[in-house]
Amino acid sequence: MENIPFRIIPLGGLGEIGRNMMVYEYADQYLIVDAGLLFPDSDMPGVDYIIPDFQFLKDKVDKVVGIVITHGHEDHIGAVHHLLDLVQAPVYATPLTRGLLEVKLGRAGVLSRTSLITVQAGERVEIGPFKVDFFHVCHSIPDSVGLGIETPAGLVVHSGDYKFDHTPVDNWPTDYARLAEFSRRGVAVLMADSTNSEHPGWTPSERVIDQALDQVFNQAKGRIILASFASLVSRMQQVANAAVKHNRKLAFVGTSMVDNAKMARKLGYLDVPETLVIPIDQALGLPADQVTIMCTGSQGEPSSILGRLSTGTYRSFSIQEGDTVILSSKAIPGNEEAVYRTINRLFERGANVIYEDIAPVHVSGHASQEEIKLLINLVRPKYLIPIHGEMRHRRQHANLAREMGIPAENIMIVDNGQVIELLDGTLYEGDRVCTSQVFVDGSKVGDVSADVMREREMLARSGVVLVHLVVDKNTHVLRADPEIISRGFILGNEGDQLFSLVRIKINDAVRQSNGNGTVEEDVERALRGFLFDETRRRPMVFVTASRV
Amino acid sequence: MENIPFRIIPLGGLGEIGRNMMVYEYADQYLIVDAGLLFPDSDMPGVDYIIPDFQFLKDKVDKVVGIVITHGHEDHIGAVHHLLDLVQAPVYATPLTRGLLEVKLGRAGVLSRTSLITVQAGERVEIGPFKVDFFHVCHSIPDSVGLGIETPAGLVVHSGDYKFDHTPVDNWPTDYARLAEFSRRGVAVLMADSTNSEHPGWTPSERVIDQALDQVFNQAKGRIILASFASLVSRMQQVANAAVKHNRKLAFVGTSMVDNAKMARKLGYLDVPETLVIPIDQALGLPADQVTIMCTGSQGEPSSILGRLSTGTYRSFSIQEGDTVILSSKAIPGNEEAVYRTINRLFERGANVIYEDIAPVHVSGHASQEEIKLLINLVRPKYLIPIHGEMRHRRQHANLAREMGIPAENIMIVDNGQVIELLDGTLYEGDRVCTSQVFVDGSKVGDVSADVMREREMLARSGVVLVHLVVDKNTHVLRADPEIISRGFILGNEGDQLFSLVRIKINDAVRQSNGNGTVEEDVERALRGFLFDETRRRPMVFVTASRV
Repeated sequence: MENIPFRIIPLGGLGEIGRNMMVYEYADQYLIVDAGLLFPDSDMPGVDYIIPDFQFLKDKVDKVVGIVITHGHEDHIGAVHHLLDLVQAPVYATPLTRGLLEVKLGRAGVLSRTSLITVQAGERVEIGPFKVDFFHVCHSIPDSVGLGIETPAGLVVHSGDYKFDHTPVDNWPTDYARLAEFSRRGVAVLMADSTNSEHPGWTPSERVIDQALDQVFNQAKGRIILASFASLVSRMQQVANAAVKHNRKLAFVGTSMVDNAKMARKLGYLDVPETLVIPIDQALGLPADQVTIMCTGSQGEPSSILGRLSTGTYRSFSIQEGDTVILSSKAIPGNEEAVYRTINRLFERGANVIYEDIAPVHVSGHASQEEIKLLINLVRPKYLIPIHGEMRHRRQHANLAREMGIPAENIMIVDNGQVIELLDGTLYEGDRVCTSQVFVDGSKVGDVSADVMREREMLARSGVVLVHLVVDKNTHVLRADPEIISRGFILGNEGDQLFSLVRIKINDAVRQSNGNGTVEEDVERALRGFLFDETRRRPMVFVTASRV
Repeated sequence: MENIPFRIIPLGGLGEIGRNMMVYEYADQYLIVDAGLLFPDSDMPGVDYIIPDFQFLKDKVDKVVGIVITHGHEDHIGAVHHLLDLVQAPVYATPLTRGLLEVKLGRAGVLSRTSLITVQAGERVEIGPFKVDFFHVCHSIPDSVGLGIETPAGLVVHSGDYKFDHTPVDNWPTDYARLAEFSRRGVAVLMADSTNSEHPGWTPSERVIDQALDQVFNQAKGRIILASFASLVSRMQQVANAAVKHNRKLAFVGTSMVDNAKMARKLGYLDVPETLVIPIDQALGLPADQVTIMCTGSQGEPSSILGRLSTGTYRSFSIQEGDTVILSSKAIPGNEEAVYRTINRLFERGANVIYEDIAPVHVSGHASQEEIKLLINLVRPKYLIPIHGEMRHRRQHANLAREMGIPAENIMIVDNGQVIELLDGTLYEGDRVCTSQVFVDGSKVGDVSADVMREREMLARSGVVLVHLVVDKNTHVLRADPEIISRGFILGNEGDQLFSLVRIKINDAVRQSNGNGTVEEDVERALRGFLFDETRRRPMVFVTASRV
């Protein structure tokens, strides 16, 4: 038994390791941890979101013994319905995570054929050869867990997203006892969250938001509109508490927000008085100082409710003078411009806007440096693999661990697809498996590659010029004026002047076309050079020809 | 005389007011303050930079009495050579600002026909009807000034970019005495920098960088490569001081860095031992622990030296294990992704990377809240117009001023193009003048409009599909297989399958073409609908036809 290696296979996502998907293997049986999505970088136009590459699993679908979900955020559950198209394994989750999954899988139409298994934090579940301890961790969503995963080859602790909040909104701190117990059993490998490894000290408690909200509610004279993520159930609780205290009603707006709030109330994760929550139509009829509205759009997405409120294009209601708008979230890297544009527009419409830069209306859900050190000292692992974070975060995490005395050779910074093997208590680098980013664009998955993205970038940079020629098939001279269309290249007026030169150039190119290539190729080449010389831009040029 | 209004006309720039250009008018004579560029948002593909709209000045070129430059940063001087194409007025600047301008105008080939006038901070200059006091301010570049601009209608104080640094690198604090003197004369309007109005407290002194650099130099075992802006002369001085202290030589890399360093040494703004600065070729021959290299690229620009070092495509040298790379700058909003991508890549190449998130290797050059309040109390203006900043910054600036007792009606938040008139001691909103963003793309200025930008966005989102038909001119049936080209739309393999359906669709559309429109239009319409139904994407579709 002891000669079978326990393999760790990080998959998925844009320089982030293991946040969106991690695979554990023992004796040819596979356990998947999380299946989340990633938001595209701003240089990935048209891409709705990115999911992990399931390529590696294609010939192993019958060997997957289970899918374990650590918590209900999109970057951990957002690709589950895509994964279930390939793998029909049971999905293990805590009650709230399961509730969020049900809403999501229901909307994707795959709920009925999915086997969901509820696990309480603190439970141990045997999934194939893996003994999995689900231990509670604090994060910005309730009911989050980390995992102790044991096989005969050893114990691996997978932190998931976590922080050590002493005063969490749900009064349920991270499970120190279980972490200490792991260290007694002996931890071979700690896989731990690196997101906030650049931040010194301790991440503030979620409670500080209570005070910030209280202050905003105290000063607001009109309606309060708070934007956040639809899955941020603890924020819903905090907003509800503030609304009760300040004699305001609360209306949720947007399908996912409404559905998640309903589910969280049903499961007891959102505890509010019966009369507090009212439909938005009713809220809009109340005096402004009795209204709290909670909606999505805190990332500045133009199609979100807050996005449409900022441009005056939301149907149900508009921003009015005296409204207070709270963005209770942090801009995901790359969204800063969109978020600040939304804030500026809301100010222009007369709202007072409160956001992270000016008040602590959001705190991070991830461990800072002192918490990262605490986790290491609680767990006392032989090996550390920093996960969840870009290279810079993992490197800082490694620096912290080295300062604590973990030998550099026992800290592994790995890439996606790099298999790690635990055998006889020692960690080895194994094979590399195929992994990449899979783009979801419109209704299709994976049919937009890096090549297509490069073409989009070229088109975006300088546009496109189309030319249609009518050429005499015998004499090869032009029989009509070339038809020229451009998009994204140049302004009409300026273009007209340039395009009269283009016509001359085309005539020259057709006349000089020597028959080595087609006339289309000759004109394309001539135009590319000419347009670059004239404008220092490189539009895509396409020439078609009729021969008459 | 007193019945002539003193007009303030903010122009230029992407929701920022007055940073890139401000125009003052009295008795039909015009004074221009600054002419800078703005970096494009990430949704402006292909745009190199943005300059203010000079439209308003076109019929007033003979009435411009002078161009005053407050300091040598790109967002204040980067459009001067474009402005000089239109306006041939003398340009007033302090010695270092003039030096930076000369380098820049020389490269643009307009230096010889420009009249540059050197002004020392502390001087008063009469420029047409404007009495202009140049007063020294601290900022992240030496020799910065703010302006007191007086006409018979009153005194306007224009802060420029400023902070109150008690221990600046050049030991030259902001000119408190002159500010106090203004308040004795009576200030009608204060136009003041809002950039950091969201930041509580006091911006740290530039000196803290000395300590941070000292620590990095202490620990570095290999080469030190520091990236910053080419105009950051005070940073050059700090790096030089650290290099001297730690027995390293210093090499500047990149034309603008080398030129600016040479100029700054000549003018005495960069004070270094004769033997410290060596050419890069010589530096590369020294032992690694004796080398400091200073280059550009701190914004993650792929074509910059640091950008190319991060991808291993810089010719002169490569990143090696043991290098320490310092990004001594803040990411300009919208550049965060590019900056962090560069940092991650440098880590992957074996460098240790030091950046703002983990060490104070950069501080802001702008006043924080307590400094903003100090300026207001020193100047004691009747009116305040927050400038330099997005709407959110100007609103916070206004909030601070209200808390200090300035009546809300004496604080004006204005848009670009909104003329403000000072008459008989009272401020009025005047006309609006035409203003917009002018894009510079390649060798051309202003021929890329918002419409062209929208087309680029559409092309980037879903690409382009081109179809060429050969149709019988009598029977209107297809005489050959349609030629189909796509770019940025879909992957080859997947495309082949889709495009066989497209061929069927084209055949159908040609057959059903009823002669109301052309066959090209009918096929375009049919394809757009079909492709959206199949993929939920909207590529641009263009159909051309030969009739044979």
